[in-house]
Amino acid sequence: MGKGFTVWFTGLSGSGKTAISKFVEKEILKQGREVEVLDGDVVRTHISKGLGFSKEDRDAHISRLGWLASRFSHYGVPVITAAISPYKDIRNNCRQMITSAGGIMVEVYCECDLDTLVKRDVKGLYKKAIAGEIKNFTGVSDPYEAPDNPEVVCYTAKETVEESAQKVIDKLYELGCLKKKGEADEPYSEEEKKEIDKRLEALGYL
Amino acid sequence: MGKGFTVWFTGLSGSGKTAISKFVEKEILKQGREVEVLDGDVVRTHISKGLGFSKEDRDAHISRLGWLASRFSHYGVPVITAAISPYKDIRNNCRQMITSAGGIMVEVYCECDLDTLVKRDVKGLYKKAIAGEIKNFTGVSDPYEAPDNPEVVCYTAKETVEESAQKVIDKLYELGCLKKKGEADEPYSEEEKKEIDKRLEALGYL
Repeated sequence: MGKGFTVWFTGLSGSGKTAISKFVEKEILKQGREVEVLDGDVVRTHISKGLGFSKEDRDAHISRLGWLASRFSHYGVPVITAAISPYKDIRNNCRQMITSAGGIMVEVYCECDLDTLVKRDVKGLYKKAIAGEIKNFTGVSDPYEAPDNPEVVCYTAKETVEESAQKVIDKLYELGCLKKKGEADEPYSEEEKKEIDKRLEALGYL
Repeated sequence: MGKGFTVWFTGLSGSGKTAISKFVEKEILKQGREVEVLDGDVVRTHISKGLGFSKEDRDAHISRLGWLASRFSHYGVPVITAAISPYKDIRNNCRQMITSAGGIMVEVYCECDLDTLVKRDVKGLYKKAIAGEIKNFTGVSDPYEAPDNPEVVCYTAKETVEESAQKVIDKLYELGCLKKKGEADEPYSEEEKKEIDKRLEALGYL
């Protein structure tokens, strides 16, 4: 297995996080790697059930996502997260956890102005939020803190989903998270070689 | 990486789950495998914070543990869980999740009579539970449902920790979760060979 990394999408509801992530997921799989997709909804079902949308609950939810991502990173499993994750501090804590576990954090900010989001409103949520029918709605009645130094910014009001995804994919190659065919000098990474040696030794071959 | 498996300890507080698990962990590491230890307390800190000890909350906590174990199993990462996990149905759900994800569930029942536990009472919890100072205490004021067909039963009132651990370790070899030196005909498992071929192909060697 290669190095663990986490593609951490952040941005308002409807800003394209999940749509872009699907292209990125495909590219990772194409490279023969597996990938754990921790969509906001998946995590809310499995480990954050009962948590709401107050600052405290959101922080708990995102911290759990970060802890999970860090554990997968520790074992070299790539992770994609696609949750709004509105607070900068908690995202930075998650970065710390992932990095400490030996993973690479690739923060992808899906930037989109509110006017465009309200116009799109695919799920009809903005309409309800503006009417006050949904409380604590990020970008309308709850804050969103954009990242200061994300690895990638996707301007999703202007770019196509494919263009945005390509920026993320390019960054993954640039950071060495993914490797192009024939790019490596050695068929195995240092880590892989160590793993193989360990295995051969355990089997009595070394 | 080899096949994923989960050593699932279950039993009353003080019955030896954590003590035995530490020996098992050591053996797994000795075989060159990594292992994710999902101790009850670790999980309560990271993903079950806020959950109490009602039936509903315990079920939620154990289900999260099972979901986590199943995800690690999917990636071939061995897991040890050491939580009381008092309810049979939920443990069986977890077995289902782990098995569906391609892992092997090795349920280890740490059996110990209440008299012995009350006499030991290392953390002083039984005294408090009997005095009614702790509510919903498994074995005293809350039910414990023993497994019908656990892979291993450790009789921790009679066996030493080392004896119990050895039974678990023997079972891991018997089930093929761990492999003794020189036991394999091939240096790589089918899965590993597939992984390596995939990698070589991605790099243009095949």
